[in-house]
Amino acid sequence: MTWRIDWRASFGVLGTILTYLALTMLVPLMVSVVYMEDIWVFILSIIITVFIGLGLKRLDPDPDLGPQEALLLVSLAWIAAPIVGTIPFLLAGIGTDSTIGLQTGSFNALTTSVVNALFESTSGFTTTGATVLGDISLEQHSHAVLMWRQLTQWLGGMGIIVLMIAILPEVAVNGAELMRSEAPGPELQKLTPKIAETARALWIIYFGFTVLLVVILYGLHVAGLALGIELAPNMNLYNAVAHAFTTLPTGGFSPKADSIAAFSAIVQWVIIPFMVIAGVNFALFWHVIRGEAELLYKNSEFRTYAGLLAALFAVLAFLLFGGAVPKTDPGGVTNGATENALRQAAFQIGSLMNSTGYATADFAEWAEGGTEAQFVLLFAMFVGGSAGSTGGGVKVIRWLVVMKAIRRELYTSARPDVVQPVRLGGDVVDEDAIRGILVFTLLYLALFLFAAVFIMLDSARIGVNLTVLESVSASLATIGNIGPGFGKLGPFGNYLFFSDASKLLMVGLMWFGRLEIVPVLSLFVVGVSDSS
Amino acid sequence: MTWRIDWRASFGVLGTILTYLALTMLVPLMVSVVYMEDIWVFILSIIITVFIGLGLKRLDPDPDLGPQEALLLVSLAWIAAPIVGTIPFLLAGIGTDSTIGLQTGSFNALTTSVVNALFESTSGFTTTGATVLGDISLEQHSHAVLMWRQLTQWLGGMGIIVLMIAILPEVAVNGAELMRSEAPGPELQKLTPKIAETARALWIIYFGFTVLLVVILYGLHVAGLALGIELAPNMNLYNAVAHAFTTLPTGGFSPKADSIAAFSAIVQWVIIPFMVIAGVNFALFWHVIRGEAELLYKNSEFRTYAGLLAALFAVLAFLLFGGAVPKTDPGGVTNGATENALRQAAFQIGSLMNSTGYATADFAEWAEGGTEAQFVLLFAMFVGGSAGSTGGGVKVIRWLVVMKAIRRELYTSARPDVVQPVRLGGDVVDEDAIRGILVFTLLYLALFLFAAVFIMLDSARIGVNLTVLESVSASLATIGNIGPGFGKLGPFGNYLFFSDASKLLMVGLMWFGRLEIVPVLSLFVVGVSDSS
Ligand SMILES: [K+]
Ligand SMILES: [K+]
Repeated sequence: MTWRIDWRASFGVLGTILTYLALTMLVPLMVSVVYMEDIWVFILSIIITVFIGLGLKRLDPDPDLGPQEALLLVSLAWIAAPIVGTIPFLLAGIGTDSTIGLQTGSFNALTTSVVNALFESTSGFTTTGATVLGDISLEQHSHAVLMWRQLTQWLGGMGIIVLMIAILPEVAVNGAELMRSEAPGPELQKLTPKIAETARALWIIYFGFTVLLVVILYGLHVAGLALGIELAPNMNLYNAVAHAFTTLPTGGFSPKADSIAAFSAIVQWVIIPFMVIAGVNFALFWHVIRGEAELLYKNSEFRTYAGLLAALFAVLAFLLFGGAVPKTDPGGVTNGATENALRQAAFQIGSLMNSTGYATADFAEWAEGGTEAQFVLLFAMFVGGSAGSTGGGVKVIRWLVVMKAIRRELYTSARPDVVQPVRLGGDVVDEDAIRGILVFTLLYLALFLFAAVFIMLDSARIGVNLTVLESVSASLATIGNIGPGFGKLGPFGNYLFFSDASKLLMVGLMWFGRLEIVPVLSLFVVGVSDSS
Repeated sequence: MTWRIDWRASFGVLGTILTYLALTMLVPLMVSVVYMEDIWVFILSIIITVFIGLGLKRLDPDPDLGPQEALLLVSLAWIAAPIVGTIPFLLAGIGTDSTIGLQTGSFNALTTSVVNALFESTSGFTTTGATVLGDISLEQHSHAVLMWRQLTQWLGGMGIIVLMIAILPEVAVNGAELMRSEAPGPELQKLTPKIAETARALWIIYFGFTVLLVVILYGLHVAGLALGIELAPNMNLYNAVAHAFTTLPTGGFSPKADSIAAFSAIVQWVIIPFMVIAGVNFALFWHVIRGEAELLYKNSEFRTYAGLLAALFAVLAFLLFGGAVPKTDPGGVTNGATENALRQAAFQIGSLMNSTGYATADFAEWAEGGTEAQFVLLFAMFVGGSAGSTGGGVKVIRWLVVMKAIRRELYTSARPDVVQPVRLGGDVVDEDAIRGILVFTLLYLALFLFAAVFIMLDSARIGVNLTVLESVSASLATIGNIGPGFGKLGPFGNYLFFSDASKLLMVGLMWFGRLEIVPVLSLFVVGVSDSS
C-alpha cells in the first residue's frame, strides 16, 4: 500500500475554516471599538488570517474529502486555529510586559514569547484553561484581547461538539464507535440526515445556552441595581458575556484573576448548573427539545454522570461541612457553615469533574485536614465529561465500558463456557468498540504517565523542583483539558515557570486530549506503516 | 444459575498441600539442629501444620477438581500457605523483641504482631521480599527462622511456575490464554502430556539452577580460602543456600541487613545472570535442554525481555559512569569508575526489572543528579518478568501485546476497511486473549492507583506523611512483587511503620499481584452474579 491521502483537499478546506475564523475576530474588534482600545490589532489580525485562509484555499478550489482527508483536516484545524489565535496576543503585547506579547529583545525572549502565546491559544481552543498570563487584569490586557482569549474557548467547545457528534460518526472513523455503542436511542446518526443540519442543530443549542447564561447573569446585575441590593455588583455585560463564553465549553478562562471567587454567592450558584450542562452529551438536548426527555433518563452515560456528580458532591460537602478546610483564601468553609459547604462542594465538583476549571476556592492549598478533600477532587478530574459534550478527560462512557468489560472478563475466566456480551442501556456493545475503548484508555494513561515524568525531569533541569503531585497534576490538567492542578499549578497559579520544552509538550497533550488522541496518531501510524 | 462449586474438594486438596508444606519445614528443622537453636519451634510448627492439613483432607477424602474448584484451590493455597507460614515466626519470637514474634502484652500488640507475621509470610510466599523485620540479623533471629523466611520464597517461586505453566493451561482458565497466545512453539500444553509430568520437569530445572548457584557461590568461598585470597570471604554454606533460595524465585529476602551489598564484587557478578534467568519463561529452558535452543531466539517475549534489559542497563551504566550518583552508602559510583558503573547498573536493572529486589546500592537515596537514574529504575519496575517465570509485574508479554494492540487500533481507525490481526512471533494472537490482556493491564493499573491513594491517606491518618513517590512505590512494590520502593521503603528500609490497615491492604496486593488477579476476583464475581 502507498500513502495516497489527498492532503491538498484537507488544506483547501482548512483555508475555508480559517477565513471563517477571521470573521469571528469581528467580536473582539467590536469590543475594542466599544472600549476605544487597540482597534488596529484586530484589523491587522483579520487581514493576516484571511490572507492565510485564501492562500490555503487556492491549493484545492474544489476539495473532496474522504475519511482520511477528514481526519487530516481535523488534526490540522486544531493546529492551525491555535497558531492563528496567537496573532492578536502577539501583536497586542508588543512593547508591553505581557507574557504572551511578542518580545524582540533577544532570541530567547522571542521564542519564549511565541511559545507562551501558542500555549495560551492552544489552551483556549482546546478548552483547557491553563494559563501562562503572568497578570490577568484589565490593566495589563485590553478588554478586546481578553475577550478573544475567552472566545477561543467558546469556538473550541463549539468545534468539538460538531466534530464528535456531526462529523466523526459520518466519516466512520474511531470515536464514531463510541457514539454508535451508546447512542441516545439507536438513531443518533439519523439525528438529522446531513452533517450540516446536525451541526446547525447543535449550534443552536450551544448558542441558546450561552445566551441564557448571559441573560441570567446580566439580569441579576441589572435587578440588583434596580432594587438597590447587592445581587451581582461586578457582573457587568462584559463579564456576563466573558463567563458565558467560557462556561459552556468547559473552558475556565476568566478575565478576573480571582476567577469566579471574584463574584457573589448567587452568581456562583447560577454558574453551577451551566457547568453541569456543559458536561452532558449535546445530542441528548436535541432529543429533550423534541419532547423525548425520557431519553435523558434512559441514557446510561447520563445516569452515571449525574450519579457520580451527586456522590462526589455529597462526600465533599460532608468533608467541608465537618471543617476539613477551615482557612484558605479564598474559599475556606467554617465547620458547620451549611450554605458555604454546599456551594463550595457543588462548585468544585461541577467545575473539576467535567473539566471546566473555574475556581471559587484555592483547593491547591488545602493542607492537613484537606488531603481527603483534595483526593476527591483528583478522582473527579479523572472521570471527565460525557461523550459529545465539551467536557474533557477520559469520559464517563469509556469508564462505564471499561468497568463492564473488566467484570465480564472476570466472569468468563471462571466460566469459559458462558458467552456474555457487554450491555449498555439494554443494547449489546460491539466487541470492536470495546477493544477500541480499552486501547484508548490504556494509551491515555500511558501518555499521562510519560508526560508527568518528562515534566518532572525537564523542570528539575531548569532548577524547578516539582513534587510528584505537581508533575502528575500538570500532566493530567493538560491532557484532560482541565486547566488547574495542584501546588504551583493551583486555580490561582499559572504555568508560566515551565521551560519552553515542557510548555510545548503540554501544547501537544492539550491537543491529543481534545481530539481524543486517536485521529491524530492514527494518521501518523498509517503514514509510517504504509511507506515502510 | 446457582453457585454449585464443590468447595469441599478444593479444601480437601488444600489439606494435602499443607501436609507437604509441613514436610518442607524439615529444612529449617535441620538447620536448627545444626546450629543447636530453637528446635522445638519447628517440631511444634510441623505438628500444627500436619494437624490442620489432615483435618482439611477429611472434608473430602477423594476430591475431584473441575476448573472452578482448581481456581478456588489456587486462591486458597496462596492464602493458607502464608497463614501457616506465620507459625514459626510467631512461635520463635515469643518473649523477644522480634517484630514478627507473638506479642501478648496488649490486644493492640497482639494484632500488630500477627499482622506483621502475616505480612512477612505473604511477602515470602508471593516472592515479594518487602519486610517488616525491624532488625535483620542473626543476633535477633535464629539461622533456622531466617532460613524458613528464605524457604517461603523458594517454595512460592516453585509454586507459581508450576501453577502458570502446568496447571492453569490444563484447567483452561484465564492466564491460559496468555500461554496459548505466545507458546514457545505451538505445543506448550503438550510439553509433557500430564500436569504431574510437566510439574516434575519444571521442578528439576528450578532445583537444578538453585543447586548450581549454591555450588558456584560456596565454591568461590572455598576457593578463596584454599588460595588465600578474598574471593567471597563471608559466603559460607548458609549464606550460599539462603541466597540461592531467594534468587531463583526473584524473591529478594536476605539474612543480611545489607543484602547483596554485604558481599564481594565477584559474588554480585555471579548473582546477576541468575536473576536474569529467574525472569525467563521456564518452559523455554525445557526446550533448551531438549536441544531446541533456537526457540529461545525465536520467542518474541524473550527477545523483548533481553532487549529491554540491555537497553536499560546501557542507559543506567551511562548515567552512573558519568557521575550521576557519586556518594551514597552503600553503592555510589565515582565518575569514570568503569567496573563499578557496569556492575551497579547491571545489578540494579537485573534486580528490579524482573522484581527480585536485591540491593547493592541505596537507590532510594539517589538525590539531585540521581533523579534520572531513579526514573530508569521506576520504569524497569513497571516492566516485570516474563510469563511462566517467577518474576512479578505486568510481564513483558502483556506489554508487547498492549503495544501491538494500540498500534493496530490506530491503524484501523484511519483505515476501517483493513483487517489487521495482531501477531506475535509470526502467530496470530487470539482476539479474546488480546481483550483479556487489555482488561488485565487496566485492572492492574487501577488497583495500583487506588492502593497508592489509600496508603497515602491511611498513613497520614496515623501521622506519617508519605511523599507521593513513597505512596506510589509502596503500591507498585507490593502489587508487582518487587519488594523495595523509594524513600522510607528503599532497599535498606522496611515496611514496619505502616498501619495494620495498610499492611493488610498490601498483603492483598501481594496476593493479587502474584496470582495475576484474575482467578481470585473471577470466583468472587461469579459468586456474586450467580447468587443474585
Ligand atoms: K477546562
Ligand atoms: K521480589
